Amino acid sequence: MSRPAHGRPEYHKINKDLFVLTYGALVAQLCKDYEKDEDVNKYLDKMGYGIGTRLVEDFLARSCVGRCHSYSEITDIIAQVAFKMYLGITPSVTCNNSSRNEFSLILDKNPLVEFVEELPAGRSSLCYCNLLCGIIRGALEMVHLAADVTFLQDRLKGDSVTEIGITFLKKLDEKKYRRKK
Amino acid sequence: MSRPAHGRPEYHKINKDLFVLTYGALVAQLCKDYEKDEDVNKYLDKMGYGIGTRLVEDFLARSCVGRCHSYSEITDIIAQVAFKMYLGITPSVTCNNSSRNEFSLILDKNPLVEFVEELPAGRSSLCYCNLLCGIIRGALEMVHLAADVTFLQDRLKGDSVTEIGITFLKKLDEKKYRRKK
Repeated sequence: MSRPAHGRPEYHKINKDLFVLTYGALVAQLCKDYEKDEDVNKYLDKMGYGIGTRLVEDFLARSCVGRCHSYSEITDIIAQVAFKMYLGITPSVTCNNSSRNEFSLILDKNPLVEFVEELPAGRSSLCYCNLLCGIIRGALEMVHLAADVTFLQDRLKGDSVTEIGITFLKKLDEKKYRRKK
Repeated sequence: MSRPAHGRPEYHKINKDLFVLTYGALVAQLCKDYEKDEDVNKYLDKMGYGIGTRLVEDFLARSCVGRCHSYSEITDIIAQVAFKMYLGITPSVTCNNSSRNEFSLILDKNPLVEFVEELPAGRSSLCYCNLLCGIIRGALEMVHLAADVTFLQDRLKGDSVTEIGITFLKKLDEKKYRRKK
């Protein structure tokens, strides 16, 4: 990470509540459309993937982050720059293995579930915020990084924190990882 | 209008692009679910209604707007305070009839369609942003104001501006219109 984002103009921002409620309407619609939680989760991930592939260019342009030299740096940028920029929160990051390709983003609070007290009845396997996993996966793929991104813990399921696991699948090839123009 | 909103804390804000793309995913999903544009429009309005009924209390609390004494004042608040707060834009307002219960919000730019070049193929009657009409309708109903809210013009349909029409359906009963606690 070279230059984190500072002082983004106000006109790029909107009120969070409108987004959070609209996201809730999207999840509710998918729950109507798909009987199985797994299908809703897959679909949210797929939608998020599409969003991530579109957001990443804008993110790279606005955030002015430079080239990264490790998975650890990349994960820090996701947590400290991207989450901050898009959701106004900064998850903490842990590295989960010695080969340093498995990381967790720990979200003490999750704005997307602010209006959600619990998972809908009969939807105990729903990953309500799975769009986020898809977004991260899609954005990473656009900078030539393959990753598995899944919820490992979720407060909506009774866990004490919400934890998103990111496993980078290929060794980072520095030649390939350049900022897209 | 007594006190418009100023200086809202940054943590209530998120990046617009994430919302705009997520909204696009919602509309795309509804287009998959419903064959007829009219049904998509109805459903977006219905979803928006639900969102409006939830947003309004938060809006009244945060915006500190006082009691209104005319439809004109109410429409000004929607344009100058609510649109500014939630979408970062301020539509201009026109009154369209002599009995002063029909108004238009004219949007020179519409952040919700920033990533949309044109309506999807075969979807020429789609009111892409119909969620907004539902939100306004739902929010007004929560303060005991019945209104019809529809798109009168839409840049996505080739019009020169985007125009949302609001027709207040009942004479405003001042005793009823009080800020909800």
